Formats: sequence, structure tokens, C-alpha cells
Amino acid sequence: MRRSWVNPAEEARGGGGGAPAGTGSDLHLDLSGGGSLRARLMRALREAVHSGRLAPGTRLPPYRTLAADLGIARNTVADAYAELVEEGWLAARQGSGTRVAERAVPLEPDGPRAPARPAPRRTVHDLLPSSPDASAFPRTAWLGAARRALAAAPQDAFGVGDPRGRIELRRTLTEYLARARGVRTAPDRVVVCSGFAHALELLAGVLTGPVAVESYGLPFHREVLARAGRETVPLTVDGRGARVGELAATGARAVLLTPAHQFPTGGPLHPERRAAVVDWARACGGVVIEDDYDGEFRYDRQPVGAVQGLDPERTVYIGSVSKSLSPALRTGWMVLPGRLVDEVLEAKGPREMWSGVTDQLTLAEFIASGGYDRHLRRMRQVYRRRRDLLAARLAAEAPHVRVSGVAAGLHAVLELPPGTEEGALRAARRAGLALEGLRPYLHPDSAMAPRDGLVLGYGTPPEHAFAAALDALCLALPGPPEPDGF
Amino acid sequence: MRRSWVNPAEEARGGGGGAPAGTGSDLHLDLSGGGSLRARLMRALREAVHSGRLAPGTRLPPYRTLAADLGIARNTVADAYAELVEEGWLAARQGSGTRVAERAVPLEPDGPRAPARPAPRRTVHDLLPSSPDASAFPRTAWLGAARRALAAAPQDAFGVGDPRGRIELRRTLTEYLARARGVRTAPDRVVVCSGFAHALELLAGVLTGPVAVESYGLPFHREVLARAGRETVPLTVDGRGARVGELAATGARAVLLTPAHQFPTGGPLHPERRAAVVDWARACGGVVIEDDYDGEFRYDRQPVGAVQGLDPERTVYIGSVSKSLSPALRTGWMVLPGRLVDEVLEAKGPREMWSGVTDQLTLAEFIASGGYDRHLRRMRQVYRRRRDLLAARLAAEAPHVRVSGVAAGLHAVLELPPGTEEGALRAARRAGLALEGLRPYLHPDSAMAPRDGLVLGYGTPPEHAFAAALDALCLALPGPPEPDGF
Repeated sequence: MRRSWVNPAEEARGGGGGAPAGTGSDLHLDLSGGGSLRARLMRALREAVHSGRLAPGTRLPPYRTLAADLGIARNTVADAYAELVEEGWLAARQGSGTRVAERAVPLEPDGPRAPARPAPRRTVHDLLPSSPDASAFPRTAWLGAARRALAAAPQDAFGVGDPRGRIELRRTLTEYLARARGVRTAPDRVVVCSGFAHALELLAGVLTGPVAVESYGLPFHREVLARAGRETVPLTVDGRGARVGELAATGARAVLLTPAHQFPTGGPLHPERRAAVVDWARACGGVVIEDDYDGEFRYDRQPVGAVQGLDPERTVYIGSVSKSLSPALRTGWMVLPGRLVDEVLEAKGPREMWSGVTDQLTLAEFIASGGYDRHLRRMRQVYRRRRDLLAARLAAEAPHVRVSGVAAGLHAVLELPPGTEEGALRAARRAGLALEGLRPYLHPDSAMAPRDGLVLGYGTPPEHAFAAALDALCLALPGPPEPDGF
Repeated sequence: MRRSWVNPAEEARGGGGGAPAGTGSDLHLDLSGGGSLRARLMRALREAVHSGRLAPGTRLPPYRTLAADLGIARNTVADAYAELVEEGWLAARQGSGTRVAERAVPLEPDGPRAPARPAPRRTVHDLLPSSPDASAFPRTAWLGAARRALAAAPQDAFGVGDPRGRIELRRTLTEYLARARGVRTAPDRVVVCSGFAHALELLAGVLTGPVAVESYGLPFHREVLARAGRETVPLTVDGRGARVGELAATGARAVLLTPAHQFPTGGPLHPERRAAVVDWARACGGVVIEDDYDGEFRYDRQPVGAVQGLDPERTVYIGSVSKSLSPALRTGWMVLPGRLVDEVLEAKGPREMWSGVTDQLTLAEFIASGGYDRHLRRMRQVYRRRRDLLAARLAAEAPHVRVSGVAAGLHAVLELPPGTEEGALRAARRAGLALEGLRPYLHPDSAMAPRDGLVLGYGTPPEHAFAAALDALCLALPGPPEPDGF
């Protein structure tokens, strides 16, 4: 039977400009039908519980409030509540009002349920790359920044948002990125976005032609470009980063690089190549897209400054708090050449549709008050200790496994003997380790020979579990290759 | 001249596994070149200020910290700071550390700046539809909810997010929407999104064929569908909402409706049409997309329940906090038929890329603690008072202008004499009123004759400015049509 939640008699009254105004109700009850008002109210409440609309434990409005909303006497509602408590539909507890009784189990929804997704294998230790330690999120400091930011925010902050992002954040980022990353820009060239993929999606709609990428890189980024109709062309990667000398032959006018820390294989882009890629961009009118995904985490010396500083007119610099604070905040930024600002905003749309204002304002205050620097400083020490622990354990227990790419960031590459990646991944999964192989990172069109390895994130496990994660990892690694002639 | 922010000598050292580890620095300084360490540090700091990388007012790290980071003596840094203060580059203030001097004005960036956008005409009163009063955002209550939510959140909340959204929010919404809007669902059918347009974008990728829409509707929603390659077919709209009887002839298998309050022209979808549209969807395997954009704001009687409650397997229900709290929070939700959940999640991607965790958790707590109900109750009274004021003023000063669609929501339609919309908009703009005409809302393919009118949002102005906004509006309205034969 179909059924309307509105009283049809009342609905039929039409525009009702002269009807007495209620104070409005958030508990939707149909009081139509026969019997006394109390009986009709009880029937409506029972129906709401029975159908599952009012779940067990739900708090009902105070009887005074409901009475005012329905325009009926308080006693009527109080009596109906009391009787339903008697009947076991509702429960009344001192100090917490009247609630739907816990044993009034609602019906299962009548339609087919969504099919249960296959349960993932139980992960004991998450060693996937790219996530910081979620347990280290600075809740108290963040909340303090939120309090100050909300108190200081102008009223228009809660109106429709500027798609550039809040000016407070763009100003603070301009200063912070200059100081910490050598970025040269101005607030009107910064556009806030929800993270790197969002930035790449926006750029893909603005740039034309194929995009050169590093042979080793995040498959997801190649997918974002492909979905936007952009072909990707792989550049060879070696110990000095991407071989940008190959760019001229690709015909691409845009190149996506990870200059601070080649992802996932290694180190920073060599100074000569930094110069060369900027020269290339100047010569052909191209653009360097700089993915500065973990530029803040460098352990053995000063961080390598951004390529952007070499030529702000030829570089799109992209960063986020996904590694430095949390991927759950969904807050990132693009630093654009002047000529691309309007095009990117055009792609983003006339209103802010993505980035929430509270996180933007809170991040601005968190950076400006020094909380961000303090958090980064602390996490750098935590991650460096983990990296040292990882390197020491592997040197002792698996000396045939070479560890690379550990001068910075939250991940390492473990180079494995040829043909052992698949088996190592299986062993790791059996041991409850979530872990990724190196092979999926290789661009399918790359001329580079595939190498076996593991891309191991050491940022994610909480502090107390890290040693146990290393134990499990060492057990899952393949043994040394058999000596020749055995 | 090109220039690197890293010390090339240091960079060339390579992997540097054995280098002494610094505690990391967020102030990027190049200490290469000749002279004493102090001279080199001073040169690097001057250069950073001169180039604008260190903006006036920027606080420098304490000298102890910078010394530790650079691995040099504290005295060296302290002396360098002191000399630069002497030189006027830096300023030292008791209690607030050392900062870049305000008069050390940085150079303009050397590249061309983004072209200045044309300055919008100064808006004195914003009467655009669709935004609540930004000054009424409940900052204190929201912050309290954020504090409780962050304290209670499990640690994995700050890891990579589930694209369904936080379970705390999906559970709370399931209960709230049942209670307040007659929605019948379960948490595993709720998907969090960044607002209505995001939901529509996701659906457009899942549904096939043309989408029927109301003849009067938001042009932006038609654009979202068009960008996703979906043709839109208009249904006639009358006093009972969209004429859903026309659906059968359209060939569409999806229809986008605003059943609680036809946007922008009028009232709720009539009970017979609610039944009919569900019958249509059942008969042809179609889907009703229910845009419940302001369902909480109904003034003269109980809110009209959602169509979704009639058939959860045939309806996609979409809501957000954009009208109820703030469009700047970018938080909305879809309630899906079971069979569409996996497809929508597939379209959304394997990780949460859009909705930030703090706002999701805060909203869940805000609703569960009763703060949301209290806010809605208060705002309903505010907006009803404004509506009454608007109706009274127009009845007194412009009796020839019919006001419609005011039983609910944050906007009204002012029906104008034929041919006067254009002139009224011009007059309004001259008076500093931001205002929209009715004509852009009409679907270009609609068979309906265009009507002249204004779509007037009365939610946006702050309380103290509302009376003045009405004064300005009344002055901008066209006079009564001239009597015949004059």
C-alpha cells in the first residue's frame, strides 16, 4: 500500500496563506483518521517506530515542543508519550527525555538490500604508501585553531564560497610556501582544491595535448588524465629523477613531475634536470606540473626547494595536507602561472563546490600560529626514526633486499630479486600486511624494464604497532637468491 | 638568472645516508658562496626578503631552532638576526620574536600578473535566491559539536576516507531523515557528497538516456547534466508541481523533481502526482531524483514528507546543509536504492576525495545532540518573519505584483506585468540589489510561455539589513500596468 506522510486533508487546503503558523516540526506525523487526537497521535508514533522511521534509541522532542508544533494541548502529547512508554514502544529516562525503546526493533527495509561487498582480508598492519599516521593527527591543536579561526571569520565566510578559496588561506599559503618550499607567488595565483587529483582533473581540462609523466608514478594519476581524455607519455626515470631530455621528442607541452622525491622510486630531481625542464618549458611554451606530495618530509638535509621558484610562469605547483596532516581533510592548493588562473577557475565553476570553509580557515590559522611547523617538526622525527628502524632491520635480516628512496617522505622501495615480487606480496597478505608491489607503478608504454619490488609506506601504522609490522614484513620477504651453480 | 634553492655542493653529495641528520627546517636558505657562515646566512636572509619569499610581517624561526636546523652555532644565527634588525630588514619585538620588517617591501613578482577581473558592481543587498543568512551560522554550537566529535572520533577517522562517507554521519542521517522527512533507508544506502551538484554529477554518470526535468528549474543543474552528456527534457509545471503525466511520452527513465517546493515557482508536488510519478518509475524501471533542497523550511503546516518514503527502491533522495546551515560547508547526502549504491560508489572512486572528515563528524554530532533541530527551529522563525514582512510590504506598495511560492523555503517569485522583467532587473542593479529574473529558469525547449518575474531570495541579508533591502526592492519594482484605453 502506498501511503503519504502528509495529511491529505490538510494538503488539499492549498496555499494556506491564512492558516495559523506552527513553529514547525521535525518529527513528521500523520494525524489523519478517526479517534481522539491522543489516539491518532499514538497511532502515528507507533507506525513511525514500527516502520523503522524512528530507530531504537531515537530521542523524541520534548512533549511541550511537539504539542506546540502540532498545535494541540500539551497534556494530549504527555499522555500519549506516557501510554506508549507503558506499552513498551517508548522509554523514559530521567534527564535524557523520552526515547524509542531499544527492543522496538524496526522492520527490515522492504526492498532488496545493497549486496554486501566482499569482506576485505583482515589487515593487521597497513604498509600501503602515501598515508601519514592517522593516530598522530593533532586534534587538540587543530581544534584550538578552529576555535580562533571561527571566532575571527567574517560573516560572509558562511555564504557562497569564492572558487579560489578563502583569502585567509591563500595569503597564509603564499607566505608559508615561500618560506618552506621556495615558492614565489601571490595570493591571487593560489587556488584551493580538495587534493592533488582534483587539481590534476582541473588542469587536464585546461591543458591540451599529451602529458609527459614519469615512467614510475601513481597509476591513479594516469587514470585521472586518461578519464579527462589526455594521453600520457612516459619519461625514463633514473637515479637523478626523470630524464627530462626526452621531453622534446614526445611532442607533449605539459609534464607531470615529482621533483622533491620521485614517486615512488627515489630521490630529488637533479639540479641540472631542474634547469633543463624549465628551459624546455620556456622554449616550447610548455608547463611543468610539480607534484610536491611530501616536500616537507626530508630527513638528512634541508628540503629541496620547489622547481616552481625557478620559473613561476612555467610551473604549476600542487601541494596538500594529505601527507603532512591527514588525507581525510581533503585540502590542497595549486599555485598557478598568472595566465592560467582564469582558465582553472573557469574549469572549477563560478562557486566553491568542493572545499569546506571551516577546514580552510582552520588550516590558515594552524599555519599562521606555528602549529603546522610544530606538527611537521614532530612528525619528521617520528618518521625518520621509523625509516632508520626499517633500514636497520632489513640490513640485519634481509641484506639481499636493497632499500631506496628513503632520504625523504613516508615510503621506501624495497628492491627484490627478479621474479619474487608476486610471491612476496602473497606472503605479505597471508601475514595480514597490506602492501603494494612496484610493478603497477610502471607506465604500460614505458621502455624501462620492469623491476621487482615493494612500495612500502612506513607512515601509516600507529607508533606502538610499528615494530610488530616490521617483524611481519621481515618474515614475508623472499630469501636471498640461490648461489650460482647450486 | 636561474637559481636553485638548494646548495648544489650539498645536493651533489647524493643519497647521503651517513650525513648527520638535522631536525629539518621550514625556512629554505641557501648558504653556498663565499664569506663567513654569518655573512652567508645574512645574504640568504636578505635575498629571501628582497625576492618576496619572506613577506613583510613573517615570523622567523627562533634562532635556536634555525641554528639546530642548519647545524651551525646559535651565536651565528643570533648575530645574523641582530645585524639584520640593525639594517632594517628584520624587526624584533618583545614577546613576538623576530619578524620581517614591514617596510622591507618585496618586489612585485617578475612575471605578468593575472589580469584583474572586472570589478563587480557594488552589491548593497543580496537578494539572490538559495542562500541562508550567513550571519546566522551557529558558530558556537558548531564548534562545541566539533570538539565533542573530534574527541570521540576513532583514530582511523584521519586516515584515507571511505567514499560512502563517515558511518557516524550516515547513521545519524538515516535516523534524522526518517524522523524529519519521512525517508526510509539504512546507513549503507547513504552516500555523503559535497552538495547537490556533486550528487547530480555522480548520478549522471550512472543513469542512461535523457533526464526529464521541470520546465522551471536551476539552469546550473541542466548544465551539470549536459556536461555529463545527458539530454534534458522539460515537463510542464503548474500550481500542483510538475505534470508527471507527460513523462511517458518523453522516453526518459529518470526525472529530476523538487517535490517539497517546486524550484523556483511554487508549492509542493500534489499527492496525486507523487503517487503517479512513483507508479511511472515502477512501470518503466525509472528513477525519481528528489531534490529536497529546502524541505526543512515550511511555515504554515507540517513539512511535506519526501517522495522517497513512498518507494525507496525507485527514488534517489538528495539533500544538503547548503540552505539549512551554510553553502560553505559543502556537505550533502544521497539516499540511494540498493541497486544503485555500488554504481554510485564506482563513479565516486575508491577513496573519499571530496568530503572532509571534520565537517562530517561535526555534522553528525550536531544533529545527534539536537543542535541542528534547534538551529532549524530558530531559522524557521526568522525566515517566516521575513516572508511575512515581504508579503505585507508588497501588498501595501506594489499590489499589482503577485507573490507566490512562499509557503516554504528561502525565496519567493514576484510575478511581474509582461515585458517588465528586464527593466526591473536593471533598476534593481542600479539600486545595488543583486537579484535574478525568472526567465533564465525556463528550460529553452519548454512549451510553456515565458513569464516575467523576479526570483527573490530573502534568506541572505543579515537581520539588521532586511528592512532596508525591502525598501530598495519596492523602489525598483515596475509600477502598475497602465489602465486600458488611457
